[in-house]
Amino acid sequence: MYNPQLNAQGELIHLLTTEGLPKRILTQILDRAAEYVAAGEAGNKKFATLAGRSVFNLFFENSTRTRTTFEIAAKRLSADVTSLNIQASSTVKGETLLDTIHNLEAMGADLFVVRHAQSGAAHLIAQHVQPGIAVVNAGDGRHAHPTQALLDMYTIRHFKGDFTKLRVAIVGDILHSRVARSDIHALTTLGCPEVRVIGPKTLIPTGMESLGAHVYHDMAEGLKDVDVVIMLRLQNERMSGAFLPSTHEFFKYYGLTPEKLALAKPDAIVMHPGPMNRGVEIDSAVADGAQAVILPQVTFGIAVRTAVMAIVSENQRGRGAQA
Amino acid sequence: MYNPQLNAQGELIHLLTTEGLPKRILTQILDRAAEYVAAGEAGNKKFATLAGRSVFNLFFENSTRTRTTFEIAAKRLSADVTSLNIQASSTVKGETLLDTIHNLEAMGADLFVVRHAQSGAAHLIAQHVQPGIAVVNAGDGRHAHPTQALLDMYTIRHFKGDFTKLRVAIVGDILHSRVARSDIHALTTLGCPEVRVIGPKTLIPTGMESLGAHVYHDMAEGLKDVDVVIMLRLQNERMSGAFLPSTHEFFKYYGLTPEKLALAKPDAIVMHPGPMNRGVEIDSAVADGAQAVILPQVTFGIAVRTAVMAIVSENQRGRGAQA
Amino acid sequence: MYNPQLNAQGELIHLLTTEGLPKRILTQILDRAAEYVAAGEAGNKKFATLAGRSVFNLFFENSTRTRTTFEIAAKRLSADVTSLNIQASSTVKGETLLDTIHNLEAMGADLFVVRHAQSGAAHLIAQHVQPGIAVVNAGDGRHAHPTQALLDMYTIRHFKGDFTKLRVAIVGDILHSRVARSDIHALTTLGCPEVRVIGPKTLIPTGMESLGAHVYHDMAEGLKDVDVVIMLRLQNERMSGAFLPSTHEFFKYYGLTPEKLALAKPDAIVMHPGPMNRGVEIDSAVADGAQAVILPQVTFGIAVRTAVMAIVSENQRGRGAQA
Repeated sequence: MYNPQLNAQGELIHLLTTEGLPKRILTQILDRAAEYVAAGEAGNKKFATLAGRSVFNLFFENSTRTRTTFEIAAKRLSADVTSLNIQASSTVKGETLLDTIHNLEAMGADLFVVRHAQSGAAHLIAQHVQPGIAVVNAGDGRHAHPTQALLDMYTIRHFKGDFTKLRVAIVGDILHSRVARSDIHALTTLGCPEVRVIGPKTLIPTGMESLGAHVYHDMAEGLKDVDVVIMLRLQNERMSGAFLPSTHEFFKYYGLTPEKLALAKPDAIVMHPGPMNRGVEIDSAVADGAQAVILPQVTFGIAVRTAVMAIVSENQRGRGAQA
Repeated sequence: MYNPQLNAQGELIHLLTTEGLPKRILTQILDRAAEYVAAGEAGNKKFATLAGRSVFNLFFENSTRTRTTFEIAAKRLSADVTSLNIQASSTVKGETLLDTIHNLEAMGADLFVVRHAQSGAAHLIAQHVQPGIAVVNAGDGRHAHPTQALLDMYTIRHFKGDFTKLRVAIVGDILHSRVARSDIHALTTLGCPEVRVIGPKTLIPTGMESLGAHVYHDMAEGLKDVDVVIMLRLQNERMSGAFLPSTHEFFKYYGLTPEKLALAKPDAIVMHPGPMNRGVEIDSAVADGAQAVILPQVTFGIAVRTAVMAIVSENQRGRGAQA
Repeated sequence: MYNPQLNAQGELIHLLTTEGLPKRILTQILDRAAEYVAAGEAGNKKFATLAGRSVFNLFFENSTRTRTTFEIAAKRLSADVTSLNIQASSTVKGETLLDTIHNLEAMGADLFVVRHAQSGAAHLIAQHVQPGIAVVNAGDGRHAHPTQALLDMYTIRHFKGDFTKLRVAIVGDILHSRVARSDIHALTTLGCPEVRVIGPKTLIPTGMESLGAHVYHDMAEGLKDVDVVIMLRLQNERMSGAFLPSTHEFFKYYGLTPEKLALAKPDAIVMHPGPMNRGVEIDSAVADGAQAVILPQVTFGIAVRTAVMAIVSENQRGRGAQA
């Protein structure tokens, strides 16, 4: 099957989604990220990999946190980074998305990081850029958030080692979550035998079983004996009475408290993509507790984004050289 | 005649307008830009010319696209770039324009890129900066946009070679266009024998003939046998019923369609400063067609801005050394 | 007494306030800044001190001018600089201040520059960051603005030499001014025998005498025979009828005119933290006159901020190495 993320040699040239990404690619990214983590711990945070290359952060949807992590990662690779808040830019003046992209290409872009409220935006851009230019999806609508999934995989591998013996639970607003979808694809590809999704009926979409995930509506059942708990952020801005009576109600049933966490394995780790709503989806005692690995996720996220940008750039340049 | 853009040796120390700029200076900029275009095609986009120098992008009028091109150009020269959106800054607190400039000088500025809604702003700043500090006009009111004109000249020279045998038509809202004025000055200086402006009577100011341009109100007449068509952006935000009945009406008479373009020479090129209003001043079939050189304009624009910043900085440092 | 700004060896590891900062530390910063001023005059503005280090500018309160000076200083030290406007960021999504800080730490921050509307914010952050990470206060509420005070001290030392023979007057809205408080602490520590504060009763807080400052409500008395006049910015946005009848009234009594300045010593210097309200707290004839040293303050401010960031980073790394 054709995969727009890979070149003819099967190398990663864009990162758009974890869906359909082979295990060897996922593992390549995690291994490369491990090198950056080790280098960082040794005090070495700067590499010449993208020196003289231009990275454009295109954020059609505002996210200071994610934009910042990509900026940091690009600067670690010595790239020249330009971040564009596109609402304030020429799309306002009636320019189409592809006109904007083609203009930035003409300005000498080598890599686009794209965040967009519409599913498929990064794919569309990847289909239309010139050979030699890479696209990294930083979140598109409800569809995918592959670098978040990869940092989640990095974190799980770091703390738990082997995916093939793990029970992983993803908890909360599965319906609106691109993180949940991307995590499920990555987990199943990496051989995780049991992925669970836990949430109220109104927040779990149909088709979870076909993705390889088991659905639970009760936290006590869903958390029982799991090794990893991935809490999702409750998007207050997306919530209305249609989905949930109140955040207080949500916390009562699905908020992760020490009591509920006690149902998981004693050495279970707790993850969260941030920013956390303390007292909504997670209790502060858990967020700040010994089982939480939420801050290591952030550190690993920089390394994973650095690895992804390095890999797709190297493979694009390889392709460019052959063309 | 005194020209504030040149030093006593006749070297370019500020770029404020193409009006009165000698042919040898225009040619010097285009030649230097050609070196950056060639280097870029060879994969070399980074130069140490402005290493350790501070470039300030002062955008008193918002323009993400133009600001980005100057940022990219300055980074290619290894400058430290600071972009300031001045509405949000201290002018709000009652500081005058010149106080702001003098403060930034005191912070160690070496080069100011200035975009301002008022005609003459860049000139005013150039008159008041210390020796050794360069000013580049990135658009002032309806007055001038010299780097846009220079990239237009670069594009024409690239595709057509000799200016002295060309018919060039500039089409659209001439009245509000600093691009049109700057293009006309550059074209006549470079020896272009026939410059035409085409547009409705309400959008062509008086005095065009004295600038050396011939006025046409009919596209069929104006486009006949031209070698170059420069379409202008219709500034929707400036339009009101006073100038035009509707954009639909404008497209009917002045929008560049394949049919109208067929009246020009068969190898005529089509230019546009961007961002385009497709279906208003230009038909998509033309914008994406074989005669359009709109994306090469963008690439050349980076090279031209790089060349301008390099030249004025080198000449300012030369002057500083002699002073 | 425990001072959170110093490590066990008495070295500066954070800069939070000038209050309680020993004279040897103040002098160390001024001496280091003098090296940067000299280097800048020799055309050398770039140092490798913070190469590969990450500086985060956290501006919870908007101040383009101060943010820009810190950005410039950090870039001079070759740091990777990320500036965050935190109103637009994740605090909006309900994340707490400390969650934000811990996340940025996890991203690899080495130094935080913090501006916050609440007094004590920088202290709070300094108490919670990991060892090895430095915090520099860029202004917190009405409490402190230590780098402004240090650049004021640099300016006074530059023009007047010895602090132990000077009369210094601080004029205007003392009540709302973190600059005034920080200046008074620094001046008394450096041995200035006579510090005066001048302003209307409504704008001078109680307790000035205990800080070592003498209170004057009359400009003629307060300015008599002083060597240094530090004018404060009248914060229009903070003014309401409760404090002052009008800015016009304020200028009449406390605006610095040539006539009032004539009461000071003939060689007295005039300082202002900027941006100035001409015609409110200062007359243009004084602002642009021979006794004003307001633009040198800006230049020295870059050098002082460069010195502070270099010193705290070096001391943090020293501590990190020992830990």
